[in-house]
Amino acid sequence: MPTINDTHRISTTDLDTPPRLLLGPGPSNAHPRVLRALSNRQVGHLDPAFLDIMGEVQELLRYAWQTDNQVTIPVSGTGSAAMEAAVVNTVEAGDSVVIGVNGYFGERLVDMASRYGADVHRLEKAWGGVFSLDELAEAVERHRPRVLMLVHAETSTGARQPLEGVGELCRANDCLLLIDTVTSLGGVPLFLDEWLVDAAYSGTQKCLSCPPGLGPLTLGPRALERLEARRSKVPNWYLDVSAVVKYWGKERTYHHTAPINMNYGLREALRLVAEEGLEARWERHARNAQMFWDGLADMGLSCHVDAEHRLTSLTTVCVPDGVDSGAVARELLARYNIEIAGGLGELKGKVWRVGLMGFNSRPENVRLLLAALAEVL
Amino acid sequence: MPTINDTHRISTTDLDTPPRLLLGPGPSNAHPRVLRALSNRQVGHLDPAFLDIMGEVQELLRYAWQTDNQVTIPVSGTGSAAMEAAVVNTVEAGDSVVIGVNGYFGERLVDMASRYGADVHRLEKAWGGVFSLDELAEAVERHRPRVLMLVHAETSTGARQPLEGVGELCRANDCLLLIDTVTSLGGVPLFLDEWLVDAAYSGTQKCLSCPPGLGPLTLGPRALERLEARRSKVPNWYLDVSAVVKYWGKERTYHHTAPINMNYGLREALRLVAEEGLEARWERHARNAQMFWDGLADMGLSCHVDAEHRLTSLTTVCVPDGVDSGAVARELLARYNIEIAGGLGELKGKVWRVGLMGFNSRPENVRLLLAALAEVL
Repeated sequence: MPTINDTHRISTTDLDTPPRLLLGPGPSNAHPRVLRALSNRQVGHLDPAFLDIMGEVQELLRYAWQTDNQVTIPVSGTGSAAMEAAVVNTVEAGDSVVIGVNGYFGERLVDMASRYGADVHRLEKAWGGVFSLDELAEAVERHRPRVLMLVHAETSTGARQPLEGVGELCRANDCLLLIDTVTSLGGVPLFLDEWLVDAAYSGTQKCLSCPPGLGPLTLGPRALERLEARRSKVPNWYLDVSAVVKYWGKERTYHHTAPINMNYGLREALRLVAEEGLEARWERHARNAQMFWDGLADMGLSCHVDAEHRLTSLTTVCVPDGVDSGAVARELLARYNIEIAGGLGELKGKVWRVGLMGFNSRPENVRLLLAALAEVL
Repeated sequence: MPTINDTHRISTTDLDTPPRLLLGPGPSNAHPRVLRALSNRQVGHLDPAFLDIMGEVQELLRYAWQTDNQVTIPVSGTGSAAMEAAVVNTVEAGDSVVIGVNGYFGERLVDMASRYGADVHRLEKAWGGVFSLDELAEAVERHRPRVLMLVHAETSTGARQPLEGVGELCRANDCLLLIDTVTSLGGVPLFLDEWLVDAAYSGTQKCLSCPPGLGPLTLGPRALERLEARRSKVPNWYLDVSAVVKYWGKERTYHHTAPINMNYGLREALRLVAEEGLEARWERHARNAQMFWDGLADMGLSCHVDAEHRLTSLTTVCVPDGVDSGAVARELLARYNIEIAGGLGELKGKVWRVGLMGFNSRPENVRLLLAALAEVL
């Protein structure tokens, strides 16, 4: 046997992380009950006890999304994995696809769909803007897409894309409607079935207040028909929903080992949503966001997105002229253990991104952030 | 606003899972220190404190694998995601690939490589057998593969593929060597650099005694050269290592949000490996496996794999004639809260799979299982 090399056998200390208040675009702080659930003792991924837990996670996800979709599951990766799962299971090479690009995550959808050979048509808008129904109708009529992809809650801009009427437009044109709900699920009103959405994905580390590590995904009957009628295998083994559902469905066939403890955490996070109720939860997010916006206005600061289309979970605050946005964020972290983030892409240096998500959407956090921001500025 | 539908707002109880002893092929029980680490308070995925943790995880993974590879990271999915990452980053459409198929996971490598358009050549062997260096040399000379893929530790059969000399064979033929170490990392001797392995992947829920949810991956310099020289983008966004390393490397560019708490858990699991030391850990696995095998022999039970190539982390026990393997497993679970698993594929109904992995590789578990098995049989 060769000699064991101890070069990388470093000595480490017990885990001791600073007590951060995570008010950036996510992750947000997990609810204490969720953190406790994570460390619950394990069972096997085919244990009858775990199958029950899986069923509860699915059912509670349906409630949070307001959908009856049978295929409603947490993908065993982060929100980005669920995003790719939504794309790869609905798109085939050569398919015409229209993607609304009004921020970083629309751009990422373009990258993903392109990798899978889609004929991508970009519908562009300045970062922070949203698309009107007329603009969407025109694009659908011009490009006859098989899928229209929109970001309901743009984590990079804080804009909320209205979806009323979009589902009807898609159905009339034999087009699937796929939406990103990463920063809206559990915080901002969402009615997937009412809005005739065919595919949606999310993350756990935003308004659900669970650590990152699972990516909720839901596919409706029209998306499943498309999946069944494919000309070729899904060109991605891990995210192939036609195989994954055999584990999450009645067959319980092994596909991959589900992240047991992360599912414990998500279950607890979704229980908290159900206990509070969606109406109260959405209202709480709206109330605390309004308190934050009012406080910003009192300080003479403005928001990047117009009030009508502003997400209540994530606000982009305009950086005043002459202020170094990065320095302010670093100062908040160093002095007060508060994390906020800067802008991405077009908005780099121009905005701060402030999340008031899930458990973190509380008046005391708003009050603290406003006071700290006033001092640092 | 539409009316909120409460159909799926089910009521649930506090999480209360049975106290299982997980002696199947994985997940194994996580170490209590790992479970506690999971529930540690969060920091952001770009927090300086988290960047330190990432560095420690990488360094300790290098120790566990005995490699200096710069690109040594936990993929943000389970072991199956790391497996697909290893494949998709080393293979391009049209590439000749030789895959050793002597169990379920060799079969899965064929499925994955085929989805990415590889020209796959199967090298077959009965489940439980391993390939000789001569057989591998003949296949490499015949098919001139760009990549040779072998399963070091076949979780479906309990066989350990010897790797001495295989790396030299691959280098002499301009071929990468890619290996599956899901059931060996942290339990069975592994010397990636000494063996000239170019790519390897693993899971956290086997001999590392961390819950499932991350997939360790390592790529050596020859694999990275291949990645840089690709004719096309990696056809998988989430697992594209050329993008992921910008987050795990010096740039710290956002790609996706890393599973923070799972990384806390993996760090603790790897600390336990470093504290015990690889030599002692491997020896412990060997000692407890031998105790189990001796106990089986005393009961008149035999192992499916010959002693020379038997994994010390996972044993396939032959089911005696006339015994219903599923009924025995169910009885062990119902009466003693012990999970073991049956065979897959060719070995369905013919073997039980018993894992003695990481924290679970202890004499008291061997003694209990032997006694329970004797009673149930």
